[in-house]
Amino acid sequence: MDNCIFCKIVNGEIPSRIIYEDEHVIAFHDINPIAPIHILLIPRLHISSFNDILPENKELMGHMAWVSKEIAKQNKIDEKGYRIVFNCGEHGGQEVYHLHAHILGGRLLGGLVKR
Amino acid sequence: MDNCIFCKIVNGEIPSRIIYEDEHVIAFHDINPIAPIHILLIPRLHISSFNDILPENKELMGHMAWVSKEIAKQNKIDEKGYRIVFNCGEHGGQEVYHLHAHILGGRLLGGLVKR
Repeated sequence: MDNCIFCKIVNGEIPSRIIYEDEHVIAFHDINPIAPIHILLIPRLHISSFNDILPENKELMGHMAWVSKEIAKQNKIDEKGYRIVFNCGEHGGQEVYHLHAHILGGRLLGGLVKR
Repeated sequence: MDNCIFCKIVNGEIPSRIIYEDEHVIAFHDINPIAPIHILLIPRLHISSFNDILPENKELMGHMAWVSKEIAKQNKIDEKGYRIVFNCGEHGGQEVYHLHAHILGGRLLGGLVKR
């Protein structure tokens, strides 16, 4: 997708601190971390949001779950714990319209929404 | 698993407000909602936490993603937006050790962790 910042990261047009990549996904450090570990995991395929997941993307989504857990382990947040978040749309606070998982850890994270 | 409250919901030993079920997963309203829509989606299979996802669970995890999105649509939070959260371990704030996705919506959700 033209003008999609995450597609530009996938294509190497914008630099990022990549920590994991395979043929389906890429993970890199969030440029505005809100926790000591704040990694974004994205599919190479442009899927705009969680709303746009199709049945044929199930395999990809399962792979993202597995990779998220492996990334948590590699970053040594698996024992103390972490949070995986997908924001969708305005109420969810989605900022970039290319599906991504936030992998958050390194401290006690507190509430999962604002009360 | 004995003494797992979510396994008891799966087995019908504890009542819950089930809103969706199929052969792999069950979804029900959280008893302590923190948003107007707060649904928990769990696999029938006992997986203790996100850390315990095995490669053979990828298909199940992909199915959970797809079902989460369908539940968002059925509960009319797809257009305004929503958040999907997996908490793992102490830092993540996991309360029940049977893997579950929180599906949250119905209002602007704010920060995805406590700052």
